Amino acid sequence: MSSQPPTPASGHASSAEISARERRSFDRLVNFTDAVVAIGITLQLLPLIDIDGPTGDETVWQVISTNSGQITAFVLSFVVVILMWRNHNAVFNSLRRTDGIIFRLNVLWLILVVFLPWPTAMYGTASNDVVAGADGVGLLYWWTLAAISGVGSLIAVHARRTPTLLEPGEAEIVEATHVANRWRGIIFFSAFILIGVVSEFAPGIAPFLAFGLIPADIIVSRSGKKAKEQA
Amino acid sequence: MSSQPPTPASGHASSAEISARERRSFDRLVNFTDAVVAIGITLQLLPLIDIDGPTGDETVWQVISTNSGQITAFVLSFVVVILMWRNHNAVFNSLRRTDGIIFRLNVLWLILVVFLPWPTAMYGTASNDVVAGADGVGLLYWWTLAAISGVGSLIAVHARRTPTLLEPGEAEIVEATHVANRWRGIIFFSAFILIGVVSEFAPGIAPFLAFGLIPADIIVSRSGKKAKEQA
Amino acid sequence: MSSQPPTPASGHASSAEISARERRSFDRLVNFTDAVVAIGITLQLLPLIDIDGPTGDETVWQVISTNSGQITAFVLSFVVVILMWRNHNAVFNSLRRTDGIIFRLNVLWLILVVFLPWPTAMYGTASNDVVAGADGVGLLYWWTLAAISGVGSLIAVHARRTPTLLEPGEAEIVEATHVANRWRGIIFFSAFILIGVVSEFAPGIAPFLAFGLIPADIIVSRSGKKAKEQA
Amino acid sequence: MSSQPPTPASGHASSAEISARERRSFDRLVNFTDAVVAIGITLQLLPLIDIDGPTGDETVWQVISTNSGQITAFVLSFVVVILMWRNHNAVFNSLRRTDGIIFRLNVLWLILVVFLPWPTAMYGTASNDVVAGADGVGLLYWWTLAAISGVGSLIAVHARRTPTLLEPGEAEIVEATHVANRWRGIIFFSAFILIGVVSEFAPGIAPFLAFGLIPADIIVSRSGKKAKEQA
Repeated sequence: MSSQPPTPASGHASSAEISARERRSFDRLVNFTDAVVAIGITLQLLPLIDIDGPTGDETVWQVISTNSGQITAFVLSFVVVILMWRNHNAVFNSLRRTDGIIFRLNVLWLILVVFLPWPTAMYGTASNDVVAGADGVGLLYWWTLAAISGVGSLIAVHARRTPTLLEPGEAEIVEATHVANRWRGIIFFSAFILIGVVSEFAPGIAPFLAFGLIPADIIVSRSGKKAKEQA
Repeated sequence: MSSQPPTPASGHASSAEISARERRSFDRLVNFTDAVVAIGITLQLLPLIDIDGPTGDETVWQVISTNSGQITAFVLSFVVVILMWRNHNAVFNSLRRTDGIIFRLNVLWLILVVFLPWPTAMYGTASNDVVAGADGVGLLYWWTLAAISGVGSLIAVHARRTPTLLEPGEAEIVEATHVANRWRGIIFFSAFILIGVVSEFAPGIAPFLAFGLIPADIIVSRSGKKAKEQA
Repeated sequence: MSSQPPTPASGHASSAEISARERRSFDRLVNFTDAVVAIGITLQLLPLIDIDGPTGDETVWQVISTNSGQITAFVLSFVVVILMWRNHNAVFNSLRRTDGIIFRLNVLWLILVVFLPWPTAMYGTASNDVVAGADGVGLLYWWTLAAISGVGSLIAVHARRTPTLLEPGEAEIVEATHVANRWRGIIFFSAFILIGVVSEFAPGIAPFLAFGLIPADIIVSRSGKKAKEQA
Repeated sequence: MSSQPPTPASGHASSAEISARERRSFDRLVNFTDAVVAIGITLQLLPLIDIDGPTGDETVWQVISTNSGQITAFVLSFVVVILMWRNHNAVFNSLRRTDGIIFRLNVLWLILVVFLPWPTAMYGTASNDVVAGADGVGLLYWWTLAAISGVGSLIAVHARRTPTLLEPGEAEIVEATHVANRWRGIIFFSAFILIGVVSEFAPGIAPFLAFGLIPADIIVSRSGKKAKEQA
């Protein structure tokens, strides 16, 4: 880190090649995307906030236990979307502008992120029930996650193949993290597709499989970071 | 792109002519506008999230089929508002400050964007029904979109006619993209007015007409870009 | 405008006197405030979005007519909060950091802005009814607006009396706009207090009085701007 | 303040040591965090906005009195979250980048902040009732606040122990405010744990204990500031 000479405005030199207008336009798209994700992620709480507190002799722990499926779905969606937002973040931070393809893929990605709270709500309600499954709710939930992950990967693939979109100097870094990122995209996408199928036949196991993705993400992150340092 | 000399802080030289205070005030208005649009667009999900999951022998695909009108309305409003936000974005990125007229038109534009989820919800519910139409819901929905598009165009027209609001060097670019932008505004506005009328008599066709606007937008964008490159 | 020499980074020289950490802390508070206002203002839609579309032979225009009070309340709150946000904006843009008093007044101001959608919802429902009034709903609504306006004015008063909080060079401008701003604060606060009282006795007139504030705001803005140019 | 020499770009020299990409990535995480907190804090209003206005001979003051618990819970959660956000803010403003531990603690912190509106809603409803308590709702509410405070403290502890994460020159300031910050973390965490227990046995007293935390926070802030000035 410290070997890099502290050239003043090292970040500005590169951005000077694109016009101030393009920079503003790009920054606004990034901020807008982040805002929509922040709202979408927070809307996951809506089904929870409608749950009434304990009545009569009931305690709040019984309310939590009855709605454990809904709470698990909330935590799961929140964590998974943040992880996918971070991947999206990493791709956009290596860009200096967008083209029409990235703009449209990003719109699709945002629609899916904002749509997710509905499958989450249905999945959470279904998971409260012990005999859930086989009605497609799990499939819809997990495949929506797969679609978010898949569209995110398509953005990354298009960015890698279009060097004029990248910040100068990013091309090598992107190349070095190529393999790790590609693997992460494939792992997440396939995992969600598979967990969706599992959720139809063994709904109780599916969420645990998903929480297993978090260590997988950490491992891939580390190997990606190592590749970047060697570059 | 690379023929443009990388003058350091090319974007800052121009903004130095307006005071730091004006710049901050303008930036805050832009960020505030983007935040309101991001929230307004996400609130389109609210009618969807209230839809209960499948019960009994029902599957989630039947739930989706029953509520296909609501889901189509969500996707449609989301995409159309993002496209109109991008146009708004393009206008504001050529500005360096606002005047009272743009401030008030922008407030009106934001009210309409935030109001839209209600017509969307009513339109979505009505569209679930096969025999919908003739009750004005479609008209209200499409004419709200027409109003958003129309007010957005008025902002663009006022900006073009008031060179003191523009970033230096933007006047020529704005002039060059003049025709394309003006056409886009007129096309969108007239299209929404017309689709609203169609929705009263042939409600099933209206959404398809709207999805046809997306390729129209792409074509106008391209011709606008070509005009800008020749400038 | 162009007579001002384009000293590079004229806005940065002043901010260099406070540490980068203080600047970041201040900027985050400003962004956070704007985000909370953007969300609060958008939540005003919630009572509207729950209104069902037309059923049977009803048309959407009848639905709008039945709920005209709710719609008027939405537009009114939206416009008034944006105007008060602009005043708040003007004060904060002359600041370079906050102290504990401004932080706490700002928290109070935000609570009131986020609380407002509830009085708006109740007032809107009551206004749908022709024989509303005398139950205090109007009083609560207008006095909440008075409180938002009053706390905003207190922030401005404290900022003017504490020159160390101001950006260098802002003290004179603030002094020049002193009278106009003080008048605006007093006019808005008193007007809302009065309209609240009127709403108890003549509920039908109150909203029209409020829409009269918009031209009042424009007049005060202009006299303030003239004072600034003479400074 | 004015004794500090106005070295141009004093804030940029330090950030030049990390790459522009890392800076953007960090800034986006900070903005995203602030946006999620802003939305989470505003969602606290949702239970309030569903309360119907007065009907028949009822006045709005009776509605407020009946729902005073809900309103108190809203104000309390709003104020406490803003205070904890400010502490979080102070920690993040001394950082220049994050590591995996801070990222994950931050995700946990955000989940808790977004989850809080549900306990707030249940606690508010229970507090409307005079004979509430002993059903665990107060415990859940106060322990959620304890968890938010505790996770926030863990972030601060990890930041202090990892100097490579800090902005140059921040290490000494952080060390100086060490004691004050550590005390604040311990005070808030223990207070919330205790108030939770009290709320089970004497539910009427608990909120008043919490409002007592605000002066405590001010005192600790002042002693922290004094320590910083002496550094």
